[in-house]
Amino acid sequence: MALVEEQPEKHCWVCFATERDDCSAEWVSPCRCKGCTKWIHQSCLQRWLDEKQKGNSGGAVSCPQCGTEYHITFPKMGPVVYFLQQIDKALSRASPFAAVGVVVGTVYWSAVTYGAVTVMQVVGHKKGLYAMERADPLFLLMGLPTIPVVLVLGKMIRWEDYIVRLWQKCYYRGSTRYLPHVPGDGGAGDHLSVSRTLCGALIFPSIASMVGRLLFRRMPSNLQRTILGGIAFVLIKGVLKVYFKQQQYIIQANRHILNYPETNGDEQSQGGEEDAEDSGNE
Amino acid sequence: MALVEEQPEKHCWVCFATERDDCSAEWVSPCRCKGCTKWIHQSCLQRWLDEKQKGNSGGAVSCPQCGTEYHITFPKMGPVVYFLQQIDKALSRASPFAAVGVVVGTVYWSAVTYGAVTVMQVVGHKKGLYAMERADPLFLLMGLPTIPVVLVLGKMIRWEDYIVRLWQKCYYRGSTRYLPHVPGDGGAGDHLSVSRTLCGALIFPSIASMVGRLLFRRMPSNLQRTILGGIAFVLIKGVLKVYFKQQQYIIQANRHILNYPETNGDEQSQGGEEDAEDSGNE
Repeated sequence: MALVEEQPEKHCWVCFATERDDCSAEWVSPCRCKGCTKWIHQSCLQRWLDEKQKGNSGGAVSCPQCGTEYHITFPKMGPVVYFLQQIDKALSRASPFAAVGVVVGTVYWSAVTYGAVTVMQVVGHKKGLYAMERADPLFLLMGLPTIPVVLVLGKMIRWEDYIVRLWQKCYYRGSTRYLPHVPGDGGAGDHLSVSRTLCGALIFPSIASMVGRLLFRRMPSNLQRTILGGIAFVLIKGVLKVYFKQQQYIIQANRHILNYPETNGDEQSQGGEEDAEDSGNE
Repeated sequence: MALVEEQPEKHCWVCFATERDDCSAEWVSPCRCKGCTKWIHQSCLQRWLDEKQKGNSGGAVSCPQCGTEYHITFPKMGPVVYFLQQIDKALSRASPFAAVGVVVGTVYWSAVTYGAVTVMQVVGHKKGLYAMERADPLFLLMGLPTIPVVLVLGKMIRWEDYIVRLWQKCYYRGSTRYLPHVPGDGGAGDHLSVSRTLCGALIFPSIASMVGRLLFRRMPSNLQRTILGGIAFVLIKGVLKVYFKQQQYIIQANRHILNYPETNGDEQSQGGEEDAEDSGNE
């Protein structure tokens, strides 16, 4: 207290100007920093804050050196502006939920439409339209979207894989050699399998109707014809799939890794062959 | 050639067993490696390959030490299996495109439905239905989905921001002090702005119809009433938004960063206050 320190000249740590450069500029010491980073121009700090906050004018900003949070005062807000701000905030908060609602609504409406188209495809155009017009609207709005859901769930039951695994167990029972796993669908990641399941499930009624018209032409009822067509398609496809997976498995189980062709004196013939190939490629 | 090296005992680098442990096991030397990693059991390498390939049985696998690609032979594939494999590959290749098609179809169909609902909302239920029934189906399938697209594009024109910027230029012309940027919508990232634009655009016809029914009750035509309601809503909302942004801007421009309260002898009163607060909290 007794020792009066001489105040060093202020200089701004943003623009490096001193008090002598601009007498009218407003100075502020917003944090615990001492020495050369104690003082800053009010306007330089404002510009620096804008860059830090990047449009989010309400966010807290601290001194990068001492970590003190800057204390910022704003002019008082009028009631109208406050009201508008609350509305703006509420809309911003609600908009993600509304967007999710739009997406869900889109999917739901497409599922309803798909269900209606499927009903008309399976029981016949006129009959389906007549049945849906007479049905309870609530029942339709609940029932129609379940059609694609049930189709996708049904497609997810991989009974062919189960049969292949059963066959594998019986066939290779007691075998001592190493057996590979049953190869999966396509084998190139999950998103491929998801899109195959989805598309396969959605196109199934069309295929069932087509197969029904091809194989069971004499059936009088559209519904019976499509159901029989669907069953026939599932069985034929299942048998082919089981056969294909079995063959894939047998090929996989009987693969053989070859010796690397040696180029020294031990196996002169193999080495010679490779040399000949190499010179042929050159 | 003259020097016959004694062949060291084979041992497998996967299971560490030697020739003496299992006389019947098949050995393979699949790569350029010499010494202790030259030999491996055929079955051990098969298992190791399965783990490396993770279901993708066609993938090339190399020795982790010398980098030589293993040469694997498969038993010959029958024509039926080859045919099934080609079908499987084609389906796997087509399924992502089909899935994209399903998504696009879903969005398109929802846009058609939204357009039809909007036409009925704007010109009246009966009149809209009558007009759409008499219109060319191709025109409807092309025209109806453009309605939500046009609404979203129209919503993206931010004319209020333009007015605020114009006002800012005229008002603060010649000002030497630092001026902040005009604050953006909500200011919390782009996805929020996207969902606000989308939802705002899609709900606009409903709001226009509501405002039209409230303010222009005497209008005989539903179409005129809704159009006037839409214009009124856009104008009222625009004026409020411009006012809100101006006020936000003024508040932002007049914020003030305070000095950090010093606790040394220079400002005894402030320091004393802070000490009192501290002791009060203890």
